[in-house]
Amino acid sequence: MSDVDQWLSDFGSALSARDTAAAAALFHDESFWRDLVAFTWNLKTVEGPGEIEAMLDTQLEHIQPSGWHVTEPPDTADGVTTAWIAFETAAGRGNGLLRLRDGKAWTLLTALYELKGHEEPRGTHRPKGVEHGANPDRVTWLEQRMQEAETLGYSEQPEVVIVGGGQGAIGLGARLRQLGVPTIICERNERPGDSWRKRYKSLCLHDPVWYDHLPYIKFPDNWPIFSPKDKIGDWLEMYTRVMELNYWGSTTVRNASFDEDEGRWTVQVERHGQALTLRPRQLVLATGMSSQPNMPEIEGMDVFKGDQHHSSKHPGPDQYAGKKCVVIGSNNSAHDICAALWENGADVTMVQRSSTHIVRSDTLMEIGLGDLYSEKALANGITTEKADMIFASIPYRIMHEFQIPLYDQMRERDKDFYDRLEAAGFDLDWGDDGSGLFMKYLRRGSGYYIDVGASELVANGDIKLVRGKVARLTEHAVVMEDGTQLPADLVVYATGYKSMNGWAAELISPEVADKVGKVWGLGSDTTKDPGPWEGEQRNMWKPTQQPNLWFHGGNLHQSRHYSLYLALQLKARMEEIETPVYGLQEVHHLA
Amino acid sequence: MSDVDQWLSDFGSALSARDTAAAAALFHDESFWRDLVAFTWNLKTVEGPGEIEAMLDTQLEHIQPSGWHVTEPPDTADGVTTAWIAFETAAGRGNGLLRLRDGKAWTLLTALYELKGHEEPRGTHRPKGVEHGANPDRVTWLEQRMQEAETLGYSEQPEVVIVGGGQGAIGLGARLRQLGVPTIICERNERPGDSWRKRYKSLCLHDPVWYDHLPYIKFPDNWPIFSPKDKIGDWLEMYTRVMELNYWGSTTVRNASFDEDEGRWTVQVERHGQALTLRPRQLVLATGMSSQPNMPEIEGMDVFKGDQHHSSKHPGPDQYAGKKCVVIGSNNSAHDICAALWENGADVTMVQRSSTHIVRSDTLMEIGLGDLYSEKALANGITTEKADMIFASIPYRIMHEFQIPLYDQMRERDKDFYDRLEAAGFDLDWGDDGSGLFMKYLRRGSGYYIDVGASELVANGDIKLVRGKVARLTEHAVVMEDGTQLPADLVVYATGYKSMNGWAAELISPEVADKVGKVWGLGSDTTKDPGPWEGEQRNMWKPTQQPNLWFHGGNLHQSRHYSLYLALQLKARMEEIETPVYGLQEVHHLA
Repeated sequence: MSDVDQWLSDFGSALSARDTAAAAALFHDESFWRDLVAFTWNLKTVEGPGEIEAMLDTQLEHIQPSGWHVTEPPDTADGVTTAWIAFETAAGRGNGLLRLRDGKAWTLLTALYELKGHEEPRGTHRPKGVEHGANPDRVTWLEQRMQEAETLGYSEQPEVVIVGGGQGAIGLGARLRQLGVPTIICERNERPGDSWRKRYKSLCLHDPVWYDHLPYIKFPDNWPIFSPKDKIGDWLEMYTRVMELNYWGSTTVRNASFDEDEGRWTVQVERHGQALTLRPRQLVLATGMSSQPNMPEIEGMDVFKGDQHHSSKHPGPDQYAGKKCVVIGSNNSAHDICAALWENGADVTMVQRSSTHIVRSDTLMEIGLGDLYSEKALANGITTEKADMIFASIPYRIMHEFQIPLYDQMRERDKDFYDRLEAAGFDLDWGDDGSGLFMKYLRRGSGYYIDVGASELVANGDIKLVRGKVARLTEHAVVMEDGTQLPADLVVYATGYKSMNGWAAELISPEVADKVGKVWGLGSDTTKDPGPWEGEQRNMWKPTQQPNLWFHGGNLHQSRHYSLYLALQLKARMEEIETPVYGLQEVHHLA
Repeated sequence: MSDVDQWLSDFGSALSARDTAAAAALFHDESFWRDLVAFTWNLKTVEGPGEIEAMLDTQLEHIQPSGWHVTEPPDTADGVTTAWIAFETAAGRGNGLLRLRDGKAWTLLTALYELKGHEEPRGTHRPKGVEHGANPDRVTWLEQRMQEAETLGYSEQPEVVIVGGGQGAIGLGARLRQLGVPTIICERNERPGDSWRKRYKSLCLHDPVWYDHLPYIKFPDNWPIFSPKDKIGDWLEMYTRVMELNYWGSTTVRNASFDEDEGRWTVQVERHGQALTLRPRQLVLATGMSSQPNMPEIEGMDVFKGDQHHSSKHPGPDQYAGKKCVVIGSNNSAHDICAALWENGADVTMVQRSSTHIVRSDTLMEIGLGDLYSEKALANGITTEKADMIFASIPYRIMHEFQIPLYDQMRERDKDFYDRLEAAGFDLDWGDDGSGLFMKYLRRGSGYYIDVGASELVANGDIKLVRGKVARLTEHAVVMEDGTQLPADLVVYATGYKSMNGWAAELISPEVADKVGKVWGLGSDTTKDPGPWEGEQRNMWKPTQQPNLWFHGGNLHQSRHYSLYLALQLKARMEEIETPVYGLQEVHHLA
């Protein structure tokens, strides 16, 4: 019997015997069990035998796990044996990834992938489409779709309302449709994809195609590596249609309140100008990390005579040829906008207020993502699904340890590039602990630029660089604290976005926003991500302190993967399956 | 060295030495070499060493094949060794399937899959999407698309015009787009998919999903087995969009003529009511086998007072509840329409004019298609691409021999069903030689019904059955030759469609239609498919007697697979690669 088989057998026996101490003893002192909804009805990482035993003591009786087995031959490298595993619980079926060192578990990922009796109609279980035989009461597919469009939200209430209709909402909507959870997606813009289409015209995804797939339908293999914004817009629109989502465009959600007794939300919306009340059981805020512009308040904004707007409202460079443009900020949007303005013949100044982390796109692809999301990875048998699970199996607590050496490599590889940037006066950083871009993203969701060309313009002075704080605006200039005057026909505030619970404050109430607390971040005690350690991203895809309120979002990779667990949580509640949440997160920060 | 490696080595050596006799001697006396564009720049099957040697004598010097090798371990069963192979030619790269018996070739399929120097931008060669670096002349994806939409067909002429915008045209259009061949698809209806949407409302695909994929983007695994018409319409519309096709809806092609000197067509079209002249080098008729209704001429049609229309114009049953409906014909459309009318409370009579072949859908799926196109096949590693090649590797000459035993099985399995149908007076057949549905489809494209329920209604008398010829119509009845009067408020002529060269007659000229001759069929000398033997389907996807005129169509499987070879032929001509056609087909029948 192999190490892994032995471990699974011992683990399965201990769990069946409800011997939680024996089960916990199969883990190293430094060990991590990350569970995605299978054991905890939560996204939760427990650390070391003590926390593991405590979790099992609470959950085991209810979860009743069984049938632990490997799904393919394990792999051993550098003293670590890695095994793909599967198991069952009372409610569903799960899979995961186990890493053993010297016969004991170092990391364990367990993830629910389907609920028993509510399997998705896919593959061998796909719908037949036509109902064979004769039936005088036959309703065609089109008639069903039209009937649903007419009744849902009117004479019938949805189980779920998703606020915001970007890629996150669309992927989640598709999963909920597959699970038979009646859902309405409310989006301000007219069409799916408009939130991309309306951004500045040179925008392309900064993540590569292999990382960006939606659930169910992968981008075809002719899809560009970095999708142009309008092309991804078209894809989202197509996807929404063929996945048969109830997508309400031109719909504004005015406010929402939760009736504790009834267990339903009252959601006031305006659809094509018509006021409506929706009464869903569950409310998902999928407004995105980049939906509430963080506009600075600067003296003189009211007297400035030129154009000024937040980066999210920037119309593109066409009307600014020959104009003096000042872009405040030095992250992704700032760089993209500066480069597009320069390309269009504008005079461009970037104002860098604090240090920024920069990685060249090619380098990031190769060193940062290549092993999991690339043609090379696919050729090595790492499907998107496997890559997602591998990624999810690295505990957040130690993830930076895996990232630091990668960024050391990147710094070495692109040394000349960084030297030139610093020579031009650019203030570089690599994250508080040198762990680079992905950790910055997980911790604070900002502070970096994936270089696709703008850095060269900064290095060679085509984009002028000014460092420091802005003191005020005058009629025709931005004035820095050191007194430098930057003449300006345009000021773009590439100053980022607010925490997602800002939306809860706006739509529901400040009280509920505070009850829920800060959204995003890990509690890493690094810049913009204060401790204490949380173990998982705050409030994302999991139960919050506000019953029946959920947050969904992140990049395309996260939306794709975590929408599964959010969808299963919503489905379980609809079916009134017991879902005892272990370790509901506490609130340490309001925003 | 294995049998296959030995054979490929001998074959490769003989070809390199231009020793065509030695190459031909590696084939059995009864043997078949089917070539798809790789050796013959044609779709062509040559039979036996004599024909093989003659083909090689003509083509070898130009084709210069090399690099023959297996791409995975061969498989031996029942004395036949089957091997997936690959090779190169001077112009491109090919793959294929070889079957050996006792060390000699029994069947060989060779198929070109790409042209050297014109590989499709896919996978590791996919486009980058964003152009990194700064470029003042940057044109965004959207700007490019808009520019193309404005210029192509106006200030710039397309290389190819495709007449008809159904699934065949769309799949071919996608392949041509990938190969960089400027193409306009002209479709009468407004939107892609409308040709499905406008059919009778209960229509679903009669072929299962695994058989129906388009190139590049497969249906997701939640797609129904038998797609409802409106759902497939949506898929086609979205596919057209994301594959970036130049699809001209609401466009009627008025006429076309070929200028031999210039090598270009003059195509008069009306787009949204505006007259335009297109000047493509190549013209593809993709109007489908089911686009020119075959309306019978029956005495009294002018005096009949009820509704009457061809099945393609049937609006569905809604307005015919309680009415007397006579459907003339007994193939797929007739059955579907009868069943939908009955379901809607009409009084329905089917007029069977000649014998019909009926197979139950479930039985056909399991016995007829299950080994190649099903979840089971996928689980066995038979991808759609492999299934297409396996299908293509069975020579048409002997295909019926493989089909007959399958239909014997079906007849046995569903004996009770057939007995009941015959007891109800239904005139059954199994094709002239008992080879069943797929051969009927290839030979004549008609004469069958895939039963999804209507047969039960015929068997139990819910749909009344009348056999014989229609003599005439009166004001309120259909009168049979034996004098039977069938009172009618509605007459549907489910009388099939005309040969596709009818379109050539209509759009180009009767002379060109006659020059090209009958389209479809194999020359099997069976009903509606007169001899002599042709070896391939007449005029489909290959050069015709009219230079620069091509026919494309067939079911979704054929459109998917053969669009590749048609696209490569068109691309080769655009790039002025030499394309010496071997065995251009002769014309034996006008229609």
